[in-house]
Amino acid sequence: VVRREVVQVITPGTVMGSGVQDARNQYVAAITETMSAYGVFAADLTTGETYACVVEDAERAMEELLSYRPKEVILEDNSTLTELIREKSDAFITYLHSPDDTAKEAAELPEELQSGASLLTAYLYQTAKRSLEHLQAFSQYEPSRFLQIDHYSRRNLEITETMRDRSKSGSLLGVLDFTRTAMGARRLKRWMEKPLYSQSEAEERHLMTGTLLDRFLERDHIRELLKHVYDLERLSGRVSFGTVNGRELLQLKKSLQQLHPLTEILKSLDCAPAKKLASGMTPPSELINLLELSISETPPVSITDGGVIKDGYNEQLDQYRDAMTNGRSWIAALEAKERQATGIRSLKIGFNKVFGYYIEVSKANISHVPEDRYERKQTLSNAERYVTPELKEKEKVILEAEDKSGKLEYELFTAIRDEVKTFIPQLQSAALSVSSLDVLQSFAEAAERHRYVKPVFNQEKTISLSRSRHPVVESVIDAGAYIENDFDLTADQDMLLITGPNMAGKSTYMRQLALIVIMAQAGSFVPAEQAELPLFDHIFTRIGAADDLASGQSTFMVEMNETRRAVDDATSRSLILLDEIGRGTSTYDGMALAQSVIEYIHNRIGAVTLFSTHYHELTVLAEKLNRLENVHASAREDNGVLTFLHRIQQGPADKSYGIHVARLAGLPDELIRRADDILHTFEKRNRQRTKETQQ
Amino acid sequence: VVRREVVQVITPGTVMGSGVQDARNQYVAAITETMSAYGVFAADLTTGETYACVVEDAERAMEELLSYRPKEVILEDNSTLTELIREKSDAFITYLHSPDDTAKEAAELPEELQSGASLLTAYLYQTAKRSLEHLQAFSQYEPSRFLQIDHYSRRNLEITETMRDRSKSGSLLGVLDFTRTAMGARRLKRWMEKPLYSQSEAEERHLMTGTLLDRFLERDHIRELLKHVYDLERLSGRVSFGTVNGRELLQLKKSLQQLHPLTEILKSLDCAPAKKLASGMTPPSELINLLELSISETPPVSITDGGVIKDGYNEQLDQYRDAMTNGRSWIAALEAKERQATGIRSLKIGFNKVFGYYIEVSKANISHVPEDRYERKQTLSNAERYVTPELKEKEKVILEAEDKSGKLEYELFTAIRDEVKTFIPQLQSAALSVSSLDVLQSFAEAAERHRYVKPVFNQEKTISLSRSRHPVVESVIDAGAYIENDFDLTADQDMLLITGPNMAGKSTYMRQLALIVIMAQAGSFVPAEQAELPLFDHIFTRIGAADDLASGQSTFMVEMNETRRAVDDATSRSLILLDEIGRGTSTYDGMALAQSVIEYIHNRIGAVTLFSTHYHELTVLAEKLNRLENVHASAREDNGVLTFLHRIQQGPADKSYGIHVARLAGLPDELIRRADDILHTFEKRNRQRTKETQQ
Repeated sequence: VVRREVVQVITPGTVMGSGVQDARNQYVAAITETMSAYGVFAADLTTGETYACVVEDAERAMEELLSYRPKEVILEDNSTLTELIREKSDAFITYLHSPDDTAKEAAELPEELQSGASLLTAYLYQTAKRSLEHLQAFSQYEPSRFLQIDHYSRRNLEITETMRDRSKSGSLLGVLDFTRTAMGARRLKRWMEKPLYSQSEAEERHLMTGTLLDRFLERDHIRELLKHVYDLERLSGRVSFGTVNGRELLQLKKSLQQLHPLTEILKSLDCAPAKKLASGMTPPSELINLLELSISETPPVSITDGGVIKDGYNEQLDQYRDAMTNGRSWIAALEAKERQATGIRSLKIGFNKVFGYYIEVSKANISHVPEDRYERKQTLSNAERYVTPELKEKEKVILEAEDKSGKLEYELFTAIRDEVKTFIPQLQSAALSVSSLDVLQSFAEAAERHRYVKPVFNQEKTISLSRSRHPVVESVIDAGAYIENDFDLTADQDMLLITGPNMAGKSTYMRQLALIVIMAQAGSFVPAEQAELPLFDHIFTRIGAADDLASGQSTFMVEMNETRRAVDDATSRSLILLDEIGRGTSTYDGMALAQSVIEYIHNRIGAVTLFSTHYHELTVLAEKLNRLENVHASAREDNGVLTFLHRIQQGPADKSYGIHVARLAGLPDELIRRADDILHTFEKRNRQRTKETQQ
Repeated sequence: VVRREVVQVITPGTVMGSGVQDARNQYVAAITETMSAYGVFAADLTTGETYACVVEDAERAMEELLSYRPKEVILEDNSTLTELIREKSDAFITYLHSPDDTAKEAAELPEELQSGASLLTAYLYQTAKRSLEHLQAFSQYEPSRFLQIDHYSRRNLEITETMRDRSKSGSLLGVLDFTRTAMGARRLKRWMEKPLYSQSEAEERHLMTGTLLDRFLERDHIRELLKHVYDLERLSGRVSFGTVNGRELLQLKKSLQQLHPLTEILKSLDCAPAKKLASGMTPPSELINLLELSISETPPVSITDGGVIKDGYNEQLDQYRDAMTNGRSWIAALEAKERQATGIRSLKIGFNKVFGYYIEVSKANISHVPEDRYERKQTLSNAERYVTPELKEKEKVILEAEDKSGKLEYELFTAIRDEVKTFIPQLQSAALSVSSLDVLQSFAEAAERHRYVKPVFNQEKTISLSRSRHPVVESVIDAGAYIENDFDLTADQDMLLITGPNMAGKSTYMRQLALIVIMAQAGSFVPAEQAELPLFDHIFTRIGAADDLASGQSTFMVEMNETRRAVDDATSRSLILLDEIGRGTSTYDGMALAQSVIEYIHNRIGAVTLFSTHYHELTVLAEKLNRLENVHASAREDNGVLTFLHRIQQGPADKSYGIHVARLAGLPDELIRRADDILHTFEKRNRQRTKETQQ
């Protein structure tokens, strides 16, 4: 009786085989609640990455959790967080008893995080049902090391995928991705989703990007070498999981062989971050030697098919193989000999699993077989099969050799695999360095192809972008047709009130700034002729409404919720984009709220803010709020046709635009004149009203 | 040499075969320009329908043209209308010299329309390259006999198809279509696209719908009979085209056989319009007899396969068939005889096209064939084939009979087809009556299933609808959950200003009225408990903006164009729906235009108008404009959750709604208090402002 037991449980987050996407991480996450804060944990079983952090409020903890896009979330069985997760994610939720012991991967964490990390690893061990050497020890990171971008903004800014069909093409990532390895593609995605909030780290990336941009010969060489680097992270995972095969070990060897030339190039670049990268990818020469000596250059897919181990690696195996080879030669010689002896040209020696080796003679030739030469073994409809004692003897030798060789090969392979396991930390370190290098060369490649420049950070809160472009929009517009725009903000003037007609480029202008900030803090160069930026801690957006309308929610409620988050959490180092706040309610309500929000941000927060609005009357606020400046998206009329210029210009928009269009559309003169009169009264009153409400 | 010449040209609008959709007409249209007006023409080659009318201005002429959704448009070769058509339609355009002669189908038209109608028929004859008996004579109709609905409104109200995926399901037609015949489905579509502007005609349809609703036994019987009526219009077309086959003539007969019982039921209904319908579908008994006598009950698909004509219809054909039958019996007898004579049980008589009839004996039995009994004809690998003189003789008789029978059948069939052609006018008259009956029973069926009531027209411009529903929305909402709404408008109060939050049902309420008007004027009952309506001449709408946004146009320009059309063309008998006019421009511009449009319609046009707006401050207009009334879509708050009631109530919306939501969303108290203050100032000013602008 074969003993049957569960050897592995496969869940949405713990798939290891063909269901895994190369260019995406596959995270299982956990969240725990302590006295006054939340622990957020994530692990990718395929790559062994682990993350842990403490977040103080529930909403931000959810944001941190969602930033991993977990396929599964693990909760303590008495967790009260289910509802909160259900609201925002469709991840599978699993409840687990908190383990009594602390997992070894959690040992280095502060005490309050140990139980959550242990919960997550307990789940991984329970489903994998084996040791997981590649699972890295958790180390705590500070969420505040990164630029915070909430889930909604990340979606809306289309950083890694489009809103419409969730495709990479059409997103910021789609424009920037020139990585050559799957590891690099994943790391780029992660860097774009979690840009840095650390000037020194971002500048280090810029330095490296710049070096690779200038040293294009070296970059080309690096790109060529990276082509031969396979997915070291996931190969490590498969080694640890015990599912690696001969071909993958060959891929591992080939990948590791690229490390030496890569480090040589990096050292030649004469730049500190390059040297740091090089030191992370020291080739494990012992492992490369082992693989070079032991693994065949043409291994089969299945390790039990034989032929995985190279000749000369193991004396005993070589002897078995010799025995097999000799035996087979002897049999080939026997066939020739017997043909000659019997004169039967079609005589042949065959093999099957039941009868072993046999001599086969067709019916027509049976009469030519000399009496007593062979022992009859099997009769077929049109042939007879025979054996001889010496054939049987050789057969025994060959089969024994085959059997022993198979077993030995498997033993040897397992031993090699176990040996490789001991190198996993080095492989993971190399993977980190190689994938980072891949992202940085991708930034350099993008900078060259798209004419990006290095952004310079300043402490003075100056935003100065000359002739900047929207990185995605410019990629789909004909060269020459794209309208570049400047940004010019300072600590004394850090809020823009953007007016102007629909379709004239207001929201593109706003998104453009957010994307440039994200690119700069991720380490990329940016689409402009010159770029100075402060370092932002958080991006808040409220742009567009199409997605919420579809879900049947009250747009206005969503709008107010997003606004509340910005107002609650933003600091003077944050970037806030608000697009037509208030349009979902009645005019005066909306206008009162819009004004009140602008005043509140201006007086209480001091965040860099772009605020687009149809409430043209808000433009008078600039007179009182000294940090608020008016700009407008411009339009031009040629022979009765309006063209939107997509150029943002100083000052408020031309107020007569709406009635002007109505006139172009041919509405009756009487109606237009009346509208003009009403507008005039509005404007007169508005001046007066503004003075009053500003007191 | 076979002479090859073009026998038919198939173009997008002149497909006759399998590419034709049953439930849709397939129009080719033409438009011509005369001194001061436009001639619009349409013809459906598959059904023979023709239409012609005069329209005075270009925009309306385009609307009339587009109402046919033509696949092709024919223009005079010097036409200047190309651009105008290209803007609005993707139909194929063909230019043609104006023909010198007047087509016979155009003879009854007024002189200024003859050349356009001749242009269209010339095109049809040139592509069909044959006579087209089923093409009906053009007769002029007055576009003003119908409720005018422009192309944009027809799309936006989703009368016959949804905007999203152009499917019938989800449209008004989808809810109303219980037709049983393809003709009926097409006519229903046409009636919904062109509702009547004639009280007497609409009331006649209501009378008939009501009678069929009450007399449900008769309705069931009619529905059962209609199931057996095939597409008489398109069958007529195929008869005329010469492409009709035996099976279709059988379908024609079956269809015509339903006419008698249908007329009997109609007469029994004791109602004037039923009698009128009955008189239109007098069964052409002569034709039924002809088909009954001549066409086999199991005709083959191809008329050259033989067997189309019934036995007994033609003496000569019967003789040929006898000869064939006798000959074949003789051969069967011969086979039996020869088996016995030779003792070869496997002997058989076969036939092929090269050798004709033969006796076949297998190789094994050849030795049993008596010498000289047969003449050897053909040797196969395992059989011999023979003939005898008498077999050859019989063969000649049989083959001659077959040949002659085939030719004769074809002649007879052609003669019958030509005879059927002479009945085409009667068939078309029957088709008209049957399809109208089908639509009317479909109205009755819909009225029963959806609980519709008969609308009553009045001359006083009273709109009184109790507990009315949106016909499409109610079909997708659970019974009991649907919120019914009343309409109560009079000549003295014919404008509604609708305020209230998004998603609360404002635009559903507006669309609901338009759809009920369309249903009533098409002859259908309507979703309400009681319904009084005036007769409208034109529906203008400006609802939603999603479609224009996608096309990249300036929403506001489109908005103003639609508004201009309403303001230019509406009369006091028109219905205007304007949804948030002005939201695409800055607030005061938009508000000034909105107020000016409302005043203009109120003072100059007097059309029934539903105007929804976020410009809450417009609600004060009701104080001055005595025909304007405020209503609002209501919302309710339960424990911090807002529910939209979809109920329309008297008076303006609660003004504090927006700031209320902001408070629910948790914006800082300070911010909310400030917004309240600003709003308060706005409102104070607004009263004052309104007084001024109303002077």
